[in-house]
Amino acid sequence: MSHSVSSLTSWVPVAPESHFPIQNLPYGRFSEGDGPIRLGVAIGESVVDLAVLGEAGLLPTVPGETPELTLLEDRALHIEIRGRLQELLEASCPTLRDDGALRNRAILPMRRVRLHRPVGTIGAFVDFYSGIHHASNVGKMFRPEQAPLLPNYRHIPIGYNGRASSVVVSGTSIRRPKGQTKAPQAEGPSFGPTREMDFELEMGFFVRGGNPLGEPIPMERVEEHLFGLTLVNDWSARDLQRWEYQPLGPFLAKSFATSVSPWIVPLEALEPFRVAGMSQAPEPLPYLRQTGPQHYAIELEVTLQTQKMRNPQVISRTNARELYWSFAQQLAHQASNGTNLQTGDLYASGTISGAEPGTFGSMLELTWKGETPLEMVETGETRRFLEDGDVLTISGWCQGDGFRIGFGEVVGQILPSPG
Amino acid sequence: MSHSVSSLTSWVPVAPESHFPIQNLPYGRFSEGDGPIRLGVAIGESVVDLAVLGEAGLLPTVPGETPELTLLEDRALHIEIRGRLQELLEASCPTLRDDGALRNRAILPMRRVRLHRPVGTIGAFVDFYSGIHHASNVGKMFRPEQAPLLPNYRHIPIGYNGRASSVVVSGTSIRRPKGQTKAPQAEGPSFGPTREMDFELEMGFFVRGGNPLGEPIPMERVEEHLFGLTLVNDWSARDLQRWEYQPLGPFLAKSFATSVSPWIVPLEALEPFRVAGMSQAPEPLPYLRQTGPQHYAIELEVTLQTQKMRNPQVISRTNARELYWSFAQQLAHQASNGTNLQTGDLYASGTISGAEPGTFGSMLELTWKGETPLEMVETGETRRFLEDGDVLTISGWCQGDGFRIGFGEVVGQILPSPG
Repeated sequence: MSHSVSSLTSWVPVAPESHFPIQNLPYGRFSEGDGPIRLGVAIGESVVDLAVLGEAGLLPTVPGETPELTLLEDRALHIEIRGRLQELLEASCPTLRDDGALRNRAILPMRRVRLHRPVGTIGAFVDFYSGIHHASNVGKMFRPEQAPLLPNYRHIPIGYNGRASSVVVSGTSIRRPKGQTKAPQAEGPSFGPTREMDFELEMGFFVRGGNPLGEPIPMERVEEHLFGLTLVNDWSARDLQRWEYQPLGPFLAKSFATSVSPWIVPLEALEPFRVAGMSQAPEPLPYLRQTGPQHYAIELEVTLQTQKMRNPQVISRTNARELYWSFAQQLAHQASNGTNLQTGDLYASGTISGAEPGTFGSMLELTWKGETPLEMVETGETRRFLEDGDVLTISGWCQGDGFRIGFGEVVGQILPSPG
Repeated sequence: MSHSVSSLTSWVPVAPESHFPIQNLPYGRFSEGDGPIRLGVAIGESVVDLAVLGEAGLLPTVPGETPELTLLEDRALHIEIRGRLQELLEASCPTLRDDGALRNRAILPMRRVRLHRPVGTIGAFVDFYSGIHHASNVGKMFRPEQAPLLPNYRHIPIGYNGRASSVVVSGTSIRRPKGQTKAPQAEGPSFGPTREMDFELEMGFFVRGGNPLGEPIPMERVEEHLFGLTLVNDWSARDLQRWEYQPLGPFLAKSFATSVSPWIVPLEALEPFRVAGMSQAPEPLPYLRQTGPQHYAIELEVTLQTQKMRNPQVISRTNARELYWSFAQQLAHQASNGTNLQTGDLYASGTISGAEPGTFGSMLELTWKGETPLEMVETGETRRFLEDGDVLTISGWCQGDGFRIGFGEVVGQILPSPG
């Protein structure tokens, strides 16, 4: 990263540990009370209202009924807005800084607005399985007689279609789902609230632009279609999953809710944090072969807070560089059969776990199927899976020299099943 | 069905074997050339333009940017339009019949218009696996050492999320997809055009109205959410599927295209053809327990025509009553975990096969993994799977007394892989 960008500072107050310095400028959607939903950009503890700055002639306006899709699709527009915003918010620029009336309308305290799902209508939600330590842990737990990884794992970025309608923004409470489960010794299944409510720590990317049906996107053009990243919690009901997933994969065990963080961090902000990722052996087939570093060093942290606890407890720390398949490889694979992508599609990475205990991205792994419950230090409570009232928070950030490019957090509280 | 409805005739010419008598009146979307897409209703060989009749004051107008969703959502509006259309088109009604100028604008030859996907934007596409003979055949082929049906089959309407963006209307040509496959003896996988291009004979239903996230729809209210049925061909690449589907289910083997017929037949038209379906043992859990006949007696036929053939050959005949799980049970299951349905969601049944050879709904079954190729009588050609240039057509209808309630057809020609 150039020194000039890393040393930029803003006249908007930004604490050193803030996720949203002037180098970040992620996009989201917000409203005031029940007012209309508008496009915003996060900086420090504030949200910049893009429409207000557009009307004031300081930014190009973002047209369309769904301006977030316009912005995702129109790369030139996004780059122009990002560049102008960095100028306007830079410490020495007086234009907005010294115009108190405009500033008060354009820059709102984040705590006073309501944040929405960053893309209003998500056309497709796909979930990959690119966390190799997670896949390996699952194999050890459920197929102990076999090799931990299935034979296809190092050849194919395994994925499946998820449910787009139930993707919700951080802060949305999650109702414990009911479903069919079957205890190993039971004669038949029963129906009721899941007893194995879990989270999955994931990252996701939003797609820019589509391809016509039947026309794959070659690897060398994949990057044009990667807009930016977000945090994802793919809530899972493990007991439902075990009983339903043969032979067509997870369905109701996942479709009840998936949470995303409110901000899409554009890849331009993450450029300084590209890393090579782990080595891939065997070498991928040519349509998946990439050049240059295609992973990102993103620190990830999970906390759990029960209703009795006054403070959350960190239960996992890991890094997005633990993914086996890169986002670029995931997208090239998805499009390799001619599937038509659409702007705003969300692709999640699969659960990101590190290699060691304490770095796992799900309760399933952290407690090894519930065999070694987590202990909550503050209260002495234990957890095999999530219980009603528990608050699970994922956060993520790239650590720069004196600043962070962060994603904020994706948080959800478990509510009891509907009556 | 009451005598009065079954004996209705229209002044619009309708041949006895037509799929679209006055008792049917299915909805679709059409355009003339590159003109705007409008809502239409099929009768005989014609399409009724609902907007023209709305402007003429003979029908309520259907408001909204996506009028097909308005119609799917607003039951009272649909019932009123259906009732008024049946009056206007009835043989003795002079209003439209004798107004030549209006009639020529409102009733267009179907062969002169272009038919579109009946719902413009499909929010979710889910594919069930409710054809018990199909599931059993797949088990026999791929898990010969086990019981043909997995232990969960008779307890859960197994399903998975499909790809909504690649749902296309009948007539759309299908590009043979490329993908990863691995021959049993090969050391590693290779990438190229599928060698096992297949179809799947299915029915699908479109959803009316949604439920809030987290609030299941009880069985007794499921019928309110079933709008109508359509034919579905879930194109499949069997060699891709075999290599990719463990452990998360089918993905690229299916996502390249799914074809639907252009018309949604509303359930009101199918009411006389309700049947009980096969008996379910063990008895389903209470949330899946239904009363009254919930299946439909729909005759289904599949034809194949190679490029050398002058006429298509029937390769399968079966009936939708061969489904184990009803559409109502599928929907109750989907919503049982609180997943939020949305108007216009498409749920497909899974492949419908009968119990006997000649009644199977896929090449995989008809040729038993390719071991017993189909012979094309006219040319002596054989087929294990579909080849480039082949035209596959599914049609379906309910046989009434002197008339048919039909679905039209879903047809697709296989094109070579992109270069």
